[in-house]
Amino acid sequence: MKTSSIRQSSLVTKTIKETSKEEPSLNAQLLLRAGFVNRLMAGVYSFLPLGLRVLQKIEQIIREEMDALGAQEVLLPALHPREIWDQTGRWDKVDVLFRFKGAGDRDLCLGPTHEEVVTPLIGSFIRSYRDLPTAVYQIQTKFRNEARAKSGLLRGREFRMKDMYSFHETQEDLDAFYEKTIGAYNNVFKRCGLGEKTVLTYASGGIFSKYSHEFQTITEYGEDSVCLLPDKPIAINKEIAEDESVYEELMPGTSKDTRPALLEKKSIEVGNIFKLQTRFSDAFELSALDSSGNRKPILMGCYGLGPSRVMGTVAECLSDAKGLCWPKEIAPYQVHLVSLVQSDEERVQADKVFNQLVERNIEVLYDDRSDMQAGAKFADSDLIGIPKRVVVSKKTIAAGLVEIKDRKTGETSMVAPESI
Amino acid sequence: MKTSSIRQSSLVTKTIKETSKEEPSLNAQLLLRAGFVNRLMAGVYSFLPLGLRVLQKIEQIIREEMDALGAQEVLLPALHPREIWDQTGRWDKVDVLFRFKGAGDRDLCLGPTHEEVVTPLIGSFIRSYRDLPTAVYQIQTKFRNEARAKSGLLRGREFRMKDMYSFHETQEDLDAFYEKTIGAYNNVFKRCGLGEKTVLTYASGGIFSKYSHEFQTITEYGEDSVCLLPDKPIAINKEIAEDESVYEELMPGTSKDTRPALLEKKSIEVGNIFKLQTRFSDAFELSALDSSGNRKPILMGCYGLGPSRVMGTVAECLSDAKGLCWPKEIAPYQVHLVSLVQSDEERVQADKVFNQLVERNIEVLYDDRSDMQAGAKFADSDLIGIPKRVVVSKKTIAAGLVEIKDRKTGETSMVAPESI
Repeated sequence: MKTSSIRQSSLVTKTIKETSKEEPSLNAQLLLRAGFVNRLMAGVYSFLPLGLRVLQKIEQIIREEMDALGAQEVLLPALHPREIWDQTGRWDKVDVLFRFKGAGDRDLCLGPTHEEVVTPLIGSFIRSYRDLPTAVYQIQTKFRNEARAKSGLLRGREFRMKDMYSFHETQEDLDAFYEKTIGAYNNVFKRCGLGEKTVLTYASGGIFSKYSHEFQTITEYGEDSVCLLPDKPIAINKEIAEDESVYEELMPGTSKDTRPALLEKKSIEVGNIFKLQTRFSDAFELSALDSSGNRKPILMGCYGLGPSRVMGTVAECLSDAKGLCWPKEIAPYQVHLVSLVQSDEERVQADKVFNQLVERNIEVLYDDRSDMQAGAKFADSDLIGIPKRVVVSKKTIAAGLVEIKDRKTGETSMVAPESI
Repeated sequence: MKTSSIRQSSLVTKTIKETSKEEPSLNAQLLLRAGFVNRLMAGVYSFLPLGLRVLQKIEQIIREEMDALGAQEVLLPALHPREIWDQTGRWDKVDVLFRFKGAGDRDLCLGPTHEEVVTPLIGSFIRSYRDLPTAVYQIQTKFRNEARAKSGLLRGREFRMKDMYSFHETQEDLDAFYEKTIGAYNNVFKRCGLGEKTVLTYASGGIFSKYSHEFQTITEYGEDSVCLLPDKPIAINKEIAEDESVYEELMPGTSKDTRPALLEKKSIEVGNIFKLQTRFSDAFELSALDSSGNRKPILMGCYGLGPSRVMGTVAECLSDAKGLCWPKEIAPYQVHLVSLVQSDEERVQADKVFNQLVERNIEVLYDDRSDMQAGAKFADSDLIGIPKRVVVSKKTIAAGLVEIKDRKTGETSMVAPESI
């Protein structure tokens, strides 16, 4: 999909020693220093070549998992006319809407979510139960007029979002699709390296349903708090932890006095799914004939997952004191080839290793810079966090080998270049 | 990249008989009727599954051609703070800016172009001539507060845009990159099926340069007018056709009286490239040390190309009375397999052809709908415009063959399924 390898001497970004104090969050500090993102203003970032590669890989994983559910990809507008938000009564209710006037004095907003667009749109193609179930998703830039935005990629005013919407004839069908989606989400987080740290969390269902479900990644840097169940990868959002009914569902037969204390942890919300039931199909009078010829309102679900927030969460949770530490499937490159050669003759050998890797379709960032010391190159390599560092030097050339180091474990070995 | 085949019975969209009179443009009428896009308001469209596939293929072609120039992909924010637009004096000058207030009463706008973001950003990584030349591009949703938007995908308030920015030490280097970019643009238009109809057009350089260059696709439905040079794929935008100096450059030695009359044609602007010179590097005090140690301002170029506009232009220029007619490389699917079978036994045979094509990695839209007549299926197929239509019917099954028809030429033949 993308040019799969690049010489670092031609990479447009450089690592940065010091970053602004305006940026207190760990994820943004690391991503800024490594040259993955740039901050235009609070909560608004540019994705630079290394960062965009990570983002695109996360989005491709999400795309594959949503496609596997049978959902079809669309791209909905960010600019919304006021009328559709009036129809659901949310124009004045959603406090993070960017509202403004367009040509002809028309009231517009930037969509932070797309029920108002997708419901009438997909509804126009649904004639009967034969057209159900169906589901669409988009991966898109979204906007929220947040009062504060101090958490880097974790809470943006402009951010990337996958939002999926499903349409069903029966509650059983909605429930079954919702369960399948939980599996797809678990696949996404696993592939992005967050599987072990991420738990399905029961949260408030708002006005739509009894509960919604969040996917919360456990980390001391999180803004949220969850209560972990013993022996299960399931949690309860602290906001409903006082609500007895959630325990009836999750720990039946226990009472306040008999059940074990739940462990409270800080966490980051990386996904959020809702059963919307008929909240939006009622507002847009969306219905379909069932198999008996009766007109019934359509049931809906919505499923959010933020690729840029996942990127920030990985940066925050999987890094160490030396820098970023990308899981294989979302790393910007698979191999960071670091050349420490001096002579032209040695440079030919380093280039040869680079070309061999490229020919084998391995994605390589090739640090061919000739004006830097080994220590500075290694520090850059640790900060950028590519899974495998491969060093070519006078010493390794003499041995006919290269040195390979695992970014995460630090394990080092000498191997033949062909065996990487 | 995407699920490469789909059964039409599960496709979320259907073709539409009648479209709103609010949409007078041919491209939008066709794309709406075929279910490729949906109109949310004037100049603002949703891309539905078939349409998004076309858009993504066009964007992938652009990505490949920009990567081949050595440009690096980034993703810049749509939300801009007023300060950067004040710094170039364009906050009040660009009349299509959507301007509004964000949290903390901050003045914001939606970027219709990104010189104000990219210049200081890339500048922060340029220390000397050794970091030059460099170029970055993005493929992004852009916004223009157009007073009127009646041309479908050709003039949107929200639209997809590729914008590239290049940075150079010398005029010769900028000129050389600019020429290479013209070649890359020609590749893009050729691969999108617009090569023969698209001409390099000299246009006003504005305050930056003597000329800018547009890529204009000749069509009677265009909003622009160009004057074609005889015997060359080059034109002059009518807005500068009275300017004698352009003839000195393009037809030296001729005068108003001696030169042949130029043919005036209507056209659609599908690309636009500028030498910005030091207009923006001056505003952001962007400079670099040259090889002699002197500080010099950096020269810039910018290069626009709209994927959604290209999609609208292809819809408008390459369609016929029956509907859309996609060139192979940007068609949503390569084969439209139309099943006219009746019995379960025949259905097994049709499914077999589908599975064979899928196994061979051919992208197939499989019209397996059982509740439609042949005539309606053929009309849908012509409207959707996939390059090859393959029919499986009782008759073709009896012959052990399938019927294949070329959408553009209408040529039909009977072939073995394996030979498609």
